[in-house]
Formats: sequence, structure tokens, C-alpha cells
Amino acid sequence: MTQPSSHVTAPLKDELDIVIPTIRNLDFLEQWRPFFQPYHLIIVQDGDPSKNILVPDGFDCELYNRNDVNRVLGPKSSCISFKDSACRCFGFLVSKKKYIFTIDDDCFVAKDPSGKEINALAQHVQNLLTPSAPFFFNTLYDPFREGVDFVRGCPFSLRGGVPTAISHGLWLNIPDYDAPTQLVKPLERNTRYVDAVLTIPKGTLFPMCGMNLAFDRELIGPAMYFGLMGNGQPIGRYDDMWAGWCAKVICDHLRLGVKTGLPYIWHSKASNPFLNLKKEYKGIYWQEDIIPFFQSVVLPKDCTTVQQCYLELSKLVKEKLSPVDPYFNKLGDAMVTWIEAWDLLNSPAQEAAAPVDGVKKN
Amino acid sequence: MTQPSSHVTAPLKDELDIVIPTIRNLDFLEQWRPFFQPYHLIIVQDGDPSKNILVPDGFDCELYNRNDVNRVLGPKSSCISFKDSACRCFGFLVSKKKYIFTIDDDCFVAKDPSGKEINALAQHVQNLLTPSAPFFFNTLYDPFREGVDFVRGCPFSLRGGVPTAISHGLWLNIPDYDAPTQLVKPLERNTRYVDAVLTIPKGTLFPMCGMNLAFDRELIGPAMYFGLMGNGQPIGRYDDMWAGWCAKVICDHLRLGVKTGLPYIWHSKASNPFLNLKKEYKGIYWQEDIIPFFQSVVLPKDCTTVQQCYLELSKLVKEKLSPVDPYFNKLGDAMVTWIEAWDLLNSPAQEAAAPVDGVKKN
Repeated sequence: MTQPSSHVTAPLKDELDIVIPTIRNLDFLEQWRPFFQPYHLIIVQDGDPSKNILVPDGFDCELYNRNDVNRVLGPKSSCISFKDSACRCFGFLVSKKKYIFTIDDDCFVAKDPSGKEINALAQHVQNLLTPSAPFFFNTLYDPFREGVDFVRGCPFSLRGGVPTAISHGLWLNIPDYDAPTQLVKPLERNTRYVDAVLTIPKGTLFPMCGMNLAFDRELIGPAMYFGLMGNGQPIGRYDDMWAGWCAKVICDHLRLGVKTGLPYIWHSKASNPFLNLKKEYKGIYWQEDIIPFFQSVVLPKDCTTVQQCYLELSKLVKEKLSPVDPYFNKLGDAMVTWIEAWDLLNSPAQEAAAPVDGVKKN
Repeated sequence: MTQPSSHVTAPLKDELDIVIPTIRNLDFLEQWRPFFQPYHLIIVQDGDPSKNILVPDGFDCELYNRNDVNRVLGPKSSCISFKDSACRCFGFLVSKKKYIFTIDDDCFVAKDPSGKEINALAQHVQNLLTPSAPFFFNTLYDPFREGVDFVRGCPFSLRGGVPTAISHGLWLNIPDYDAPTQLVKPLERNTRYVDAVLTIPKGTLFPMCGMNLAFDRELIGPAMYFGLMGNGQPIGRYDDMWAGWCAKVICDHLRLGVKTGLPYIWHSKASNPFLNLKKEYKGIYWQEDIIPFFQSVVLPKDCTTVQQCYLELSKLVKEKLSPVDPYFNKLGDAMVTWIEAWDLLNSPAQEAAAPVDGVKKN
């Protein structure tokens, strides 16, 4: 997974899009050039659409701003957040590839303990292309990694594993803390490189961070909706969490795997904890109810597609969480709109028609 | 946790016993001397009681052979396995300390990636003395470790954690594989040092290996019964697995934590895979039913002590697993006998009376 830049591999280069939400020039791509240049990039420009975002030369990318979102989705664009990195899920919608890697624009190439630059994308691909083991907790971590297997005590009937839908990578330097923890521990940095990938067990939720994340769009794409956040909404910074909770419940139901651990990226800059607190404080309050809700969700057996599961979940969200706050009624509706938008852009008919285009850069 | 041997710490030295099951001279203790010498050792001699086991000079230890087991437990000694490392749980029974560390006699001091010798015992103590987080999957691993905290998305009500009952350590060199995997991958060695401790989530079973294991006897001791294995039994090498499945179900019920990961020991020698296959083959077959059984166990709310939980579990084992094989009736009875033996030796009255003695060595 770690390659000298002179011999960079670009696995699945025609089957994977890199999705980047941003409000600024993408100078950070310079550092990623050896790893990302072979791939197609989808930039989702947040905020003022009249602002011109510069992308370094030589990248194959298309850019969508808010005007493009409105043009492509029409009235359904209401489900795409504005002024929040939640807008990244628009990139998932318009991609036509099987795999997505999404990364924040303040994330750089990390080094492993030997000093080699980590090809995060290649490690994500490796995670996605090997099975997961959600039904057995393997104490030596990912049993599908080179040099490891299932330990004693694992039923042999479980050793085939299940397809991996999500690969969740981690962050060196600035950890993904909430505002209160940022405020209390302003100097804490993540310096520990843990050389492990593991499957998150069935029935266990996890805090999915959108900073360094890959997934199989065909397996789980319609569940990767980042919710209603930011402008006009009472909450922010729960976009990836929301997607993670929904996606994990659906993966468990559909017997799909979620991996976390390697690869690391270098997260360069802590966001402002005071602003974060303002965005988060309702979420901090609500998550005390949201987590028990997701822990208790049971999807009906006849939900056999991600879309069916997600629509069922939207009903449960409205029913069980709207007593917490009316916002969840609105969110439940947006979840339905998202699935409509997904099906609109990802139906066989649409795929045969002219592709949806952003502004072609470079 | 890793200390130069000139500055070895001996945390909890008056509150922890080291339990070692063996059939041979304990030369392996020489390498552990800087770390183990401050502690009391309980040796459980398996096999021929007339054989004299040599312990290196300078260790504070007592030794129990089969005659001692019979003398101490009388008819209840039937619950203690013979000719199987399952006999180690007799040491848990006669200990009067709050904590137990148990290790196999083919396990040596491992080195961390910097080349320092790992004080496995000190790391176990650290694991046991810090809380666990079974209700939240923390993607940065143990949130109670120095330099780490709960990541974004963790409900604040869960951040106190729960007391840690079990610390499960890992193995460099020879991994803990079953016979079929040993046979298929005779050369596979574990060379990956994963610098992590994590809580096994609530509701997830784990394969507990007895090679390198510590626990809080007061919190979970009565569940650490290693079953009926070896001589006269149809199965071997499932002793620790059995204890782990029972203990995890009870920890989940009683809101106690189980950690796995660091520390590593160096496991020197693979056991004979052909002999192992003979011991294991019924277990390999049965575990296909045993795992779903433990996954579905629900203990009644009015079971509030480990003993109550364990007796309830013994009933369920007889009811649900005896259709798999009549052995589970016998095992269920032995589980009851074990609790009787535990209460006999660990009642307040017994503790006030003369302690149970093995042969005092050194």
C-alpha cells in the first residue's frame, strides 16, 4: 500500500472517482499528484458559486457549484446541503463509477513509521477488494490481510466473509474530535500509527468521518447521504456521522462489511472549535437519542436493496426522532428526496442518456 | 508499558497472582524474571503428579498438582480438567488476589518495534485499571490511553466507560491458529506489531486465548471456568474459548468491559497440528452451533452477580446445546460444580479460615 512515488500504482483507475468538497483553491492536490493524477476528480464547490476555484494543472476533473446542483436536480436539489461539507454527497450522486474515494482539502499525504509516503487510495482499494468479517471478531485484526488468518475459535462457515462496502481511513496529526474535546485538549495530536485494518462487528455502530473515506457505490451508494446540514439548518458537522449510522445499519441488514483503520492521511489543521461548537451543540444533545435509535433499528426482511432499506429508515427517523426535534421530519423527507434523486441519476435509462456534466476543468 | 529492565515497575504486586499451567520445568521464567519476580506465582501442574517440576530460584510460588486439586476440592475436583491446560482455572479458584495474569510456559518476552522488551504484565495492569468503552466503537482505539480520546460522534453520556474485567493480550511469532489453519499455513508467523488496545463492543463475542490473559477476579473470576477438556473428554483446545464466550456474555450483561490488543508476548513454538486436530475436531464441528447459541443468549435481569449469571448460563447450555451432543449436559453440570467450588473457596468464611495451600516452592 505504500509505494515510492516512482512506482505508484493506480488500482481501479477507471472505476473510481475522487470526490472533494471545497470552498478554496485546490493547492493541496499538488502533494497528492503522484497518487491522484490517474483518476477522475469530482469537485463539489460549496458556498458562493461565482467564486472561481483553481485546480492545479494536469488533473482530470469536473466541478459542480451550487448553480450546477440546482440545474441537475431541480426541485430535488433541496436535499443537498449548502455551506457545509455535506454537499460532498452530490458528487456521489453524479459519479458513474463503481467506487468513490472522498477526502477533505486539508488532508495531506501521511508517512508510515518507516518514512514512506502512504498511498491512501491504494490502501482503500485493497480494503474494498478484500472481504470483511462482521460476524467474527478476529483478535489479529483483518484476516484477509497478507500474513494473517482467522484465529482459533472462528466457525469455518464464516470464513468466506462478506463483500466490503465501506473503507474508513484515519488521520495522523489532528484527530477528529468534537468541539468540546478540541476546547479541552487543544494540543492533542494523533501520533500513533496503528498498523491495522479491522471489520466493525455486526450490530456495532461507528463514527464515520468523511475526511478520508472510500466506498463501493454499487453496494452502498444510496445510503451515503450526508443529510441536511449547514445553511438554513439547525445543525452542522454531523453529516458524515449521519451517513455512517444509516449506512452501518443497512450494511448489517444486507450482510455487507465496513472496515476501519489504515490508511492514514495527514490532517493538517484543526477547525475552529468555537465555530464547531455553534454547529454541533444540537447534535451533541440529539446524539444521546440518535444513537439508541440506530442501535434499536430493525429493518424488515423484505427490504433487499439499499434504496428500500433507506426509505424504510426515513420512515423510522420521522416516527422515532421527530419527538426529539421537528428537524428530523424535514430530514426524513430529505432522505426520500435523496433516493428519488439517486434513482433519477442512476437509473439504467439515465445512464444510457447523456451524462450529467459539471464544468470540465483542465 | 515498555520499561528498560533496570527500571522495571511492578504494579499491583500485592494484588495480583500469576497463574501458569505446566507439565515441565519452568525455565521460561528466567526470561521473565525482571518482570515476574516481585509477584506471587501459582503453578498448576498438569499430568503425572509424581513428576517434580523445577522452578528457577528466587520466585515466590506455590504449586498444585492433581493430588492437591483432589485434596482441596474433594468430589468437586471433577470439574477441573486433567491433561489439558484447562486445569489452569484451578489457580484462579485458589488465588486470593483481586487480579490474575495467566501465561503459557512457551511464551517469552516480546520486543516492541523500537527493540525494547515489553513488560506484558504492566500493560495488562494498565488495561485493567483504565475503563472500557463497550457501547461506542472508537475509531482511534482505546480512548482511555494517553494521547487519545473519544472521537466526534460519541454520546457524552457514554464517556465514563465501564470497569474493565478482562485484558486479552496477543502473540508475536506463532499465531493462535486452529489445527486446519496450522496445517495449511505451516510457515505463517505473526510479525505485525499493532500498537493498539481496543474494547470489544457489547454484543460481540471474541476468541479468548488463554496464553496471555489477565482479568479482575473480583469482577469476573467465577466466569473464568475453562470447562471439561482433555483426559476423558471428547474435546480439547476449546478451554479458553469456552471461558471467553461465557465471560463475554456475562460482561455484556453486567456492563463490564473486555479489552484486546497490547501487550504482545513472544509465542515460541507451534503445538503439533496433527495432535491438535485430534483434540479439536469435535469443537470445530460444534462451534458452528455454539457461536449462534452464545450470540443469542439473553440473561435475565435479576441475575446481578457473576455466579447467578453463570448458573443461568449452565442451564441454557444444557437446554440448548445438549441436542448437539450429550457432552454439553456434562459440561453444564460441571459449570454448576465449578461455581460451588468457587463459593466454597471464596466465601467470606473460607477467607477468614486457613488458606488453601499448595506445595510452597522456593
